[in-house]
Amino acid sequence: MFQPPKGTGDFLPEDMARRQFVLETIRKKFESYGFGCLETPAFEQWELLQAKCGADIKEQIFRFKDKAGRELGLRFDLTVPLARVIAANPTLSKPFKRYQIQPVWRYEEVTAGRKREFWQCDIDIVGTADMTAEAECLACAVDCLKELGFKDFVIKLNNRKILEGLLVLADIPKELDLDTFRAIDKLAKITEAGVRDELKSRGLNEKQINKLFDLITLKGDCQEVLDKGKKLLKGIAIGEEGLAELQDIFELGKPYGLTSFLSIDFSLARGLDYYTGPIFEITAKAKATIGAVAGGGRFDDLIQLVGGPPTPATGISLGIERIIEIMQEQQMFKLPKTTIKTFVAPVSDEVRIDALNVCQQLRVKGIACDTDLMSRKLSKQLEYASSLGIPYVAILGPTELKKNSVKLRDMRTGKEKLVKISELAKELKS
Amino acid sequence: MFQPPKGTGDFLPEDMARRQFVLETIRKKFESYGFGCLETPAFEQWELLQAKCGADIKEQIFRFKDKAGRELGLRFDLTVPLARVIAANPTLSKPFKRYQIQPVWRYEEVTAGRKREFWQCDIDIVGTADMTAEAECLACAVDCLKELGFKDFVIKLNNRKILEGLLVLADIPKELDLDTFRAIDKLAKITEAGVRDELKSRGLNEKQINKLFDLITLKGDCQEVLDKGKKLLKGIAIGEEGLAELQDIFELGKPYGLTSFLSIDFSLARGLDYYTGPIFEITAKAKATIGAVAGGGRFDDLIQLVGGPPTPATGISLGIERIIEIMQEQQMFKLPKTTIKTFVAPVSDEVRIDALNVCQQLRVKGIACDTDLMSRKLSKQLEYASSLGIPYVAILGPTELKKNSVKLRDMRTGKEKLVKISELAKELKS
Repeated sequence: MFQPPKGTGDFLPEDMARRQFVLETIRKKFESYGFGCLETPAFEQWELLQAKCGADIKEQIFRFKDKAGRELGLRFDLTVPLARVIAANPTLSKPFKRYQIQPVWRYEEVTAGRKREFWQCDIDIVGTADMTAEAECLACAVDCLKELGFKDFVIKLNNRKILEGLLVLADIPKELDLDTFRAIDKLAKITEAGVRDELKSRGLNEKQINKLFDLITLKGDCQEVLDKGKKLLKGIAIGEEGLAELQDIFELGKPYGLTSFLSIDFSLARGLDYYTGPIFEITAKAKATIGAVAGGGRFDDLIQLVGGPPTPATGISLGIERIIEIMQEQQMFKLPKTTIKTFVAPVSDEVRIDALNVCQQLRVKGIACDTDLMSRKLSKQLEYASSLGIPYVAILGPTELKKNSVKLRDMRTGKEKLVKISELAKELKS
Repeated sequence: MFQPPKGTGDFLPEDMARRQFVLETIRKKFESYGFGCLETPAFEQWELLQAKCGADIKEQIFRFKDKAGRELGLRFDLTVPLARVIAANPTLSKPFKRYQIQPVWRYEEVTAGRKREFWQCDIDIVGTADMTAEAECLACAVDCLKELGFKDFVIKLNNRKILEGLLVLADIPKELDLDTFRAIDKLAKITEAGVRDELKSRGLNEKQINKLFDLITLKGDCQEVLDKGKKLLKGIAIGEEGLAELQDIFELGKPYGLTSFLSIDFSLARGLDYYTGPIFEITAKAKATIGAVAGGGRFDDLIQLVGGPPTPATGISLGIERIIEIMQEQQMFKLPKTTIKTFVAPVSDEVRIDALNVCQQLRVKGIACDTDLMSRKLSKQLEYASSLGIPYVAILGPTELKKNSVKLRDMRTGKEKLVKISELAKELKS
């Protein structure tokens, strides 16, 4: 028996109903914010993919050659393809606001919340360095989560520029930046002692580590944390710039209704190498252990790096798999088992063709319906309709047909009533 | 500059608007026929993919190993993954009616209508050998095309059993069956002389070839062609069975409203090896040279072949790329350039935050809108809104703000009127 490859899975109709509900809710919200849809190929040139993803992810890319020997790889995110599209289409009006909802692939250790094929829902704003773009992306992501029924969540906010300032403050050489960022990013997971050990193993001394911890352990009210940060990084230009950007986002949080969700966390670093400015993650409080349900940041260098003109850009990605997992656990879905509204059941072969006719009449009027396709007895047809969760069965026999009617059975109550075929669509719509 | 890999492409927002219109129209029609959605992984085990696809397609599969050495390949259709799902989930209620709308990948010679990444929209009915399933799939595909605005098209119909009967009649050895089928399938493309040459080169003699041509060149009214076929294949059980199935489909064409589209074509063979019964293709008359816009057939052995119990199944696949190409050429799309309804334009920095507030109010009410994200002058904002094709711009200055209003400009007529902010959503919806 063949199974789906490790780390992937099938989505049967009941799973898909949930996924489509989530994706359509998100898609509508994205469009209400003025984002337009983009889709790109599943695979890209290997050269492009490995350009700025970082060593960890580079190892996770599904890589192969086509028959002409071209080096290709399955995309591991939707940001690198976006950067390629922007570089190759310089005449696009700016800011270019695009959303993209497609699967990505990473060869990861498979765990409950981590698959090798998973969907991302990204919004990005390309062509403006203004922090309004960050606020717009965060507000849109928050609105998606609210629309799906999430109430308690936190937007963790940091800035790669602040982290760079911190390296200057702690006198850590530039070549250790990414290693350092990766270590401190684990603070929530492996505690302070764990991070200290890891930093030591990467060659940092006690004094440097203490300097780092002065900043990355700051907690509390956003404005307080920002003010303490400003004091610590005073005189370090790059750090001050990063703090001013976060201050902007904090101010913009008011018109965008974000203030109550924002939390400054100087230990947030994020895994990807292409970030250059503000970075952020959204965590659902109900299920914080599952990790972030959304994450993103500014990547002002990436488009130039892949051959385009210097172009600022920022964006956020919603992780559908985790969102659905939380919604299922918290019983947030209220969906019918099937979209089929009625099953047209002929009682015998002599009325089979008539049943098909009734079915086609309903379908033309926009009623989703099904009928018997294997000459089964009425009792078997009722069992089938019941197993699919179809709410009504329209029973058609010679007696009903003479009256141009069907016996419409409500499958929840078992009640039946005679309905004219010409009025069946109206009856089912009401 | 990086380009998308050969045979693939990007879909920018204007392209995506057309694609989404087509896919959503098809999805709704599939659901009205009672098909439920299935999605499967982009890649499958190589062993599964190569099981029954035929030599030509086997060569076209994008094949690779994951880091653990598993042999994988990108799916080349949606039927083989369906067969795997059915085999692995024996408790699914039958008939299982599923639709699947996902990309597939084949390493083909790239031409105008042929890409290496393309989308298929499949419906299949699993678990019934009754020809009603064929009629249901064909009717659903036809309704999709009608809903999209297609008027003139032909459903070509044949049956692998008839072709097998023909091999018996012409005394052609069983091991030449697939070669023979592939040659005669080219009749419409390379004419009779071309097919005769190819059959000769595959080892058939003049007498055998003449026997084939007696049947495959039959033309005319469905019932006539069927009757002639019955005479020619009389006494050859497998052929008679195939003809009886087509007769069934022809009869069922009446309640399903298919009769006027049906055409029996005994030269139709289709490329895939897994077909066992009726096979069909739909061609748009407007653009017959582009090839079929839909195709499918019965595959009663495939599920057992991949490890499941014997399970009859049939289905059809719509080729989205070709459908969209024809619709564009025939100017069948009537879509707005953008889904954004209005652009909120602050005239100066002092009202920027107020413009964000207006924007957020509209979005909450379900109005798709956009605003300035880079502190541009009003004239630049109007240019931007115009370049995106946004129909209205809500201009906000200190004067308007004092009146809790905006100046709403109709971008087509240039007319402006003052509208209360609280009534803006209503105004834009009307």
